[in-house]
Amino acid sequence: MKILFEHADILITEGNGFSELKNAYLAVEGKKITYIGTERPEGHYDEVKDYSSKLLMPGLINTHCHAAMVMLRGLGSDLPLQEWLFEKMMPVEDRFDAKTIKAATYLALLEMISTGTVSFSDMYFFCPATAEACIEAGIKANICRPLQSFDPADKYETLYRKLEADELFRDYNGAEDGRILIDDSIHAEYTCREDFVRQHALTAKARGTRMHIHLSETKKEHDECIQKFGKTPARWFADLGTFDIPAFAAHCVWITDEDIALLAEKGVSVVHNPSSNMKLGSGFAPIVKMQKAGINITLGTDGAASNNNLNMFEELHIASIIHKGYMLDSTVTKCSETLRMATINGAKLQGRPNTGALKVGNAADIIAIDLDKPHLFPNNDTVGLICYSAQGSDVCMNMVDGKILYENGEFLTLDREKIMHDAREAQKILY
Amino acid sequence: MKILFEHADILITEGNGFSELKNAYLAVEGKKITYIGTERPEGHYDEVKDYSSKLLMPGLINTHCHAAMVMLRGLGSDLPLQEWLFEKMMPVEDRFDAKTIKAATYLALLEMISTGTVSFSDMYFFCPATAEACIEAGIKANICRPLQSFDPADKYETLYRKLEADELFRDYNGAEDGRILIDDSIHAEYTCREDFVRQHALTAKARGTRMHIHLSETKKEHDECIQKFGKTPARWFADLGTFDIPAFAAHCVWITDEDIALLAEKGVSVVHNPSSNMKLGSGFAPIVKMQKAGINITLGTDGAASNNNLNMFEELHIASIIHKGYMLDSTVTKCSETLRMATINGAKLQGRPNTGALKVGNAADIIAIDLDKPHLFPNNDTVGLICYSAQGSDVCMNMVDGKILYENGEFLTLDREKIMHDAREAQKILY
Repeated sequence: MKILFEHADILITEGNGFSELKNAYLAVEGKKITYIGTERPEGHYDEVKDYSSKLLMPGLINTHCHAAMVMLRGLGSDLPLQEWLFEKMMPVEDRFDAKTIKAATYLALLEMISTGTVSFSDMYFFCPATAEACIEAGIKANICRPLQSFDPADKYETLYRKLEADELFRDYNGAEDGRILIDDSIHAEYTCREDFVRQHALTAKARGTRMHIHLSETKKEHDECIQKFGKTPARWFADLGTFDIPAFAAHCVWITDEDIALLAEKGVSVVHNPSSNMKLGSGFAPIVKMQKAGINITLGTDGAASNNNLNMFEELHIASIIHKGYMLDSTVTKCSETLRMATINGAKLQGRPNTGALKVGNAADIIAIDLDKPHLFPNNDTVGLICYSAQGSDVCMNMVDGKILYENGEFLTLDREKIMHDAREAQKILY
Repeated sequence: MKILFEHADILITEGNGFSELKNAYLAVEGKKITYIGTERPEGHYDEVKDYSSKLLMPGLINTHCHAAMVMLRGLGSDLPLQEWLFEKMMPVEDRFDAKTIKAATYLALLEMISTGTVSFSDMYFFCPATAEACIEAGIKANICRPLQSFDPADKYETLYRKLEADELFRDYNGAEDGRILIDDSIHAEYTCREDFVRQHALTAKARGTRMHIHLSETKKEHDECIQKFGKTPARWFADLGTFDIPAFAAHCVWITDEDIALLAEKGVSVVHNPSSNMKLGSGFAPIVKMQKAGINITLGTDGAASNNNLNMFEELHIASIIHKGYMLDSTVTKCSETLRMATINGAKLQGRPNTGALKVGNAADIIAIDLDKPHLFPNNDTVGLICYSAQGSDVCMNMVDGKILYENGEFLTLDREKIMHDAREAQKILY
């Protein structure tokens, strides 16, 4: 399949920022971008699309998600965190099974795909169901099943077998020509024993996976770790070998200056989850300090239970403005920086070097924004327009690996009505 | 004209919060709501609308806006505040005339109406042009021309005549059966002389208008006032009589505890502008303290130059989450509180006691949300869904005074294509 987009504006990732081609051409052949330029390329195309008044840009990468938690959207709004978690979330989560997870993931994918996400990193249960939904939808996903242990009598081998991580890795890692990747995961310091963490890092090292963790999300978690172990969660993970493999840490709200130096030294990527950190009252991650330390910072929605969306345009917007307000400085977290978090930095975190930027030879993971909207005029600064003005609903096309998943309000790989129906049925079982 | 909405969910403003009728009926006759209930009302209707899977709710009220600044959207992103204001905004604003203001206001109205605003409070120049656009669009507006004086040789009478405030009041206050109201305005402490402020308050008192001001938006403004006058801007305004008339103050980021007590005592409404306060690096308004003091707090977008939108669903979302993050407490600024800011509290500020809530006898200022969206399921909490999950683009109907201005993507009072064309022409003149 050869597709040519013509007369489009095209956002190019360049240096530390972006540049733009106006009224330009982008060609896709199979799964790859084969041409970008202002001259019409020669040759025959199966489809030529007039993308006047549309902006082609790299698809967004959501690097910390619990997709199936969409089924918990809006449960326990505005409650204290512990009450929300233990009384609202966990009792419902206990009733999830593979079927409800699959129905929930499909629902999440409708939202993610229509708001411009081309790839996401998911941490949750019944991972094969998630993988199957992603395979059908055509989206890219890094999927992991988190290790947690609450019972002191637990044995690592038993717990590990229960995760079915070997089977998940065997059946799905690299599936669909690499569209699905399997990561490993330790849920968090406060939910896992030291010896298990040490062993799980070795397992991941042997398998060559990335390690997806939660880190210093709340003050309580951070402070209690110091009380218990005399060190911060970041130091605790580092001492147990977690950062000797490619790792990425969600939240990092309460990390110290020493932690920042440690994460930078170890090459740990940090996922910023601004909506969730605000909504749950967790606090402000020290993004500007992390940027100065050279950490690879990415963006994520977290689950819809604490967001309450899976809409990366909201994260771009909120990440771009809240640190300015918190630091009383309108020049920090520039929109070009947050857009890189949501694109090329995310690709690096996911171990997908051929996506996150529009470039010849890269995977054709592309979204389009319909610029013909009252709230997108005038366009004095395209990257600013994306981060400060554009809405998820301005996405008019989502292409992954050269295949269009969504265009002009229609889902081309998913049955929207069936998914909405199945989600309603799944909810009845859950609560 | 008699319209019946049937099978709709209906959000009722009640006590300190909201309640909801499911699968209910709402009837509109002329400009007013004549029935709300779960039984079908008798009688003939000119139009019966099946609003299954739709939520009827009070239209949103944006109480601090500079609508025509949409033409400056995206100019000078991420610059220091002073550079943004003096080098990017002001040189372009100097080139505005009535024609460009009108074109710009129309553009702003497309965005406001399609994202659920039914009424707004505007502070800007060439007010008759703004009023004319609002009259045609069918939206409600409180419009004011701010008093500013930079030249020590200025005389109040000369300056006042230049404002053409008398003519504005005479020609437009109460126009369209009260749909247009004229307010008075002193721009801010740092842009006006004491004697002018004192005199302008008397003018407004004699006329019976409301006074729209900027107050303690930035630390610089707040601190410099204390240095100059030995008192805060709030105390300065109070001492000059500004708060002896109905007044409302935008921003209030840096107000002190004493200021809060003063504003509460004087019955001054405060407009919270969360996106603008974040984007410009102004800081966090002490909303929770103001709530405890019983101040009437409302919501506003500010101008699109510092937002960069006029989308009240974004303000609802951001106001609902950032104070939780800032105060490390997920229970503050509950969604029911922020939704009241954007509806009934705004109506009170505007001097419009018959709007801001769906109630028999009130003006039919109603919007509808299309609930049949993947990101709006499940609905565990309708007010939470509005504040944390809904998007401006979920608005499928906007009615003001019983007249539908927008439905299912179509503008019924405005010519979208002509407005977009005129905006492009206006921009060419400006920069």
